[in-house]
Amino acid sequence: MKNMVYIQSGGPTSVINTSFYGAIKEAQRHPEEIDHIYGSLHGIEGLIIDDLIDIGQEDEEQIELLLQTPGSILGTTRRKLPKDIHDEVYLKIIENLKKHSIKYVFVNGGNDSMDTCYKLSLLVKELGLDIVVIGVPKTIDNDLACTDHSLGFPSAAKFVINAVNALAMDAKCFQVGKVHIVEIMGRNAGWLSAAPDLLPPETRPQLFYIPERKFDLEQFLVDVKKVYEKEGYALVAISEGIDFPRDTKSMRVDGFGHAQLGGAAADLCHIVEDRLNLPTRAVEFSLVQRAFPACISLVDRNEAIQTGELAVKSALEGKTGNMIIFKRVSSNPYKIELQLCDLSKVANAESKITPSMMVDETRMSDEYRNYLRPLVEGEVTLKCKDGIALMANFKKAKVK
Amino acid sequence: MKNMVYIQSGGPTSVINTSFYGAIKEAQRHPEEIDHIYGSLHGIEGLIIDDLIDIGQEDEEQIELLLQTPGSILGTTRRKLPKDIHDEVYLKIIENLKKHSIKYVFVNGGNDSMDTCYKLSLLVKELGLDIVVIGVPKTIDNDLACTDHSLGFPSAAKFVINAVNALAMDAKCFQVGKVHIVEIMGRNAGWLSAAPDLLPPETRPQLFYIPERKFDLEQFLVDVKKVYEKEGYALVAISEGIDFPRDTKSMRVDGFGHAQLGGAAADLCHIVEDRLNLPTRAVEFSLVQRAFPACISLVDRNEAIQTGELAVKSALEGKTGNMIIFKRVSSNPYKIELQLCDLSKVANAESKITPSMMVDETRMSDEYRNYLRPLVEGEVTLKCKDGIALMANFKKAKVK
Repeated sequence: MKNMVYIQSGGPTSVINTSFYGAIKEAQRHPEEIDHIYGSLHGIEGLIIDDLIDIGQEDEEQIELLLQTPGSILGTTRRKLPKDIHDEVYLKIIENLKKHSIKYVFVNGGNDSMDTCYKLSLLVKELGLDIVVIGVPKTIDNDLACTDHSLGFPSAAKFVINAVNALAMDAKCFQVGKVHIVEIMGRNAGWLSAAPDLLPPETRPQLFYIPERKFDLEQFLVDVKKVYEKEGYALVAISEGIDFPRDTKSMRVDGFGHAQLGGAAADLCHIVEDRLNLPTRAVEFSLVQRAFPACISLVDRNEAIQTGELAVKSALEGKTGNMIIFKRVSSNPYKIELQLCDLSKVANAESKITPSMMVDETRMSDEYRNYLRPLVEGEVTLKCKDGIALMANFKKAKVK
Repeated sequence: MKNMVYIQSGGPTSVINTSFYGAIKEAQRHPEEIDHIYGSLHGIEGLIIDDLIDIGQEDEEQIELLLQTPGSILGTTRRKLPKDIHDEVYLKIIENLKKHSIKYVFVNGGNDSMDTCYKLSLLVKELGLDIVVIGVPKTIDNDLACTDHSLGFPSAAKFVINAVNALAMDAKCFQVGKVHIVEIMGRNAGWLSAAPDLLPPETRPQLFYIPERKFDLEQFLVDVKKVYEKEGYALVAISEGIDFPRDTKSMRVDGFGHAQLGGAAADLCHIVEDRLNLPTRAVEFSLVQRAFPACISLVDRNEAIQTGELAVKSALEGKTGNMIIFKRVSSNPYKIELQLCDLSKVANAESKITPSMMVDETRMSDEYRNYLRPLVEGEVTLKCKDGIALMANFKKAKVK
């Protein structure tokens, strides 16, 4: 008996279940090589405490709905495993992999999760076990190294662009405009915050602040004032991770040891009000930007399915210690190749916006726009009932 | 020469330009009765300072895009006219109506705007002018009196429902859940905040707080704690207008004299953290809920077009001092009749959620759900380029 287990880890995206869908579909095409498809509940946690579910028990209709279901259907975790792969937590994982005759392990996640994936691949190799470990890239921050982009980013970018587009039309129609500061996800990378640069001049933010460039509060105030005086309103896109002196009392720390972000727009608005005496509105897209299914990009969906499929195919070929990556062949027409990359190169590295992608705080470069444009292409049609997108609802039958 | 002028007033919606579209289309069908279609820039302001544009100069393609363009294409205002209709500001309006041979005046707005509309209708009657004034209902708050619902509310509700649906899937997948407090627009009425009650139990908020019911902070804390302990996370929908002791230092006042809302979720989250020591996340849908075109309800769009058309037809029949209202014939199947209502009954009255529509803080009643369900039905397909919804871009040729 040879089984597979699928793990979803870190922050969810609107297509995180779509790559799982691709993996399930591919696995179902190989019943002689894969007896059971298991899901580990709450990321690696399920493998530590022996909490797996049998995907074979789920209805086909519910599996189809994974294509439009945000959030990790298996649950997720932000738990970071110990550095020492001989720690007892790893022993428990190995014990459960053996107990359930698991030969194929898939870890779908971002930077920190790929670190988990990498460590696990090292350990099974060291122990000489007949187990393969494959990573599936995912992060709306788009900061995974070695790959052109990460699954989930295109759809999040599509939401952010379209939400800013709508918001700008609303913001512009008042006689007395405001300074709108829109906070977009991105701790260390500004990929997502820069996305609205793709908008036409009528709705494009006039200013962008991303973590890759040093944030100068005084210059920010000068720039905002200038834009407001010229245009009668201001629309400013900022990454949640930009660094300025803040009231840190309320800041919390997540399971990976990172400060929980949010509230930067509100804090900056207070500063603008105090210093410039201008009316403001802080807008934070919060969880909606990574979850809203009506903005799934067709490119993102299709690539997520292909990635899940390739992960399973690669595992069946015995590949291990790899993550699926995207290599861009061309942007116009958009052509991408899926390849494998050594996890050691990916784990804990970060991809950031390069200086050549940004002209200054008012504009990204053609290089960035040519990069982004094809990713947000194509609309998906959602299955709805009473005007509400249907969400997968799994039975989650526990594996004994 | 007989011309018409169209006014958009108050907070925009995602279909405010759709009723304008309906009015334009109907007016174009009567070239012998309506010579020119004018738009008043920034609500009534354009009629006060003689700032009108000629819609006849706009390209047909741009007019079609009104169907998916949020924000008021003509600009809006929150200016409240003086109570005394003999104030000089009214004289200026009359002067400009005469100057531009305007016979038909359309005011598209909410409560305060219908008050403006009403006053104007009284004045032209008093002066014995051959001018008719018709109101077109609009407000995502859905608090206009005398009508089953207001244009814009169905689409805003559809966004809010689908955003909460997605957010719930995301919120539920973490091992250590949070208390998510979602702030939804609605100053005195909870129509919009209650909308996610339409969701299935898997993604429905467990608690709802609307302005129609007295908010008891202590009971709120008891309820949140209970839900969190039972389910491992909490999802709470609140109206921005609920009343609890807050830091009012940062509150501002808008042009109609109302305190500018927002930040209630963040304030409540701080209280939950302090008092219950639970992790929280405040989510505020902000302007996106009233502007996001991908969630326009087909029912809302169709009714907006019909309302604009009927407004023009009624004006041509000499009707004045009326607002278009919706009378519901049946909910299942959904059947609605458009009628006219005397503006005196509408102006400054408010429609609120009745006690029979809400069971308690955990659930709305069947009555409410049967009311809401048909309104959010039907999806629209947007014209997109590069994955971005196209927005109308008017030339705005000034009327001399």
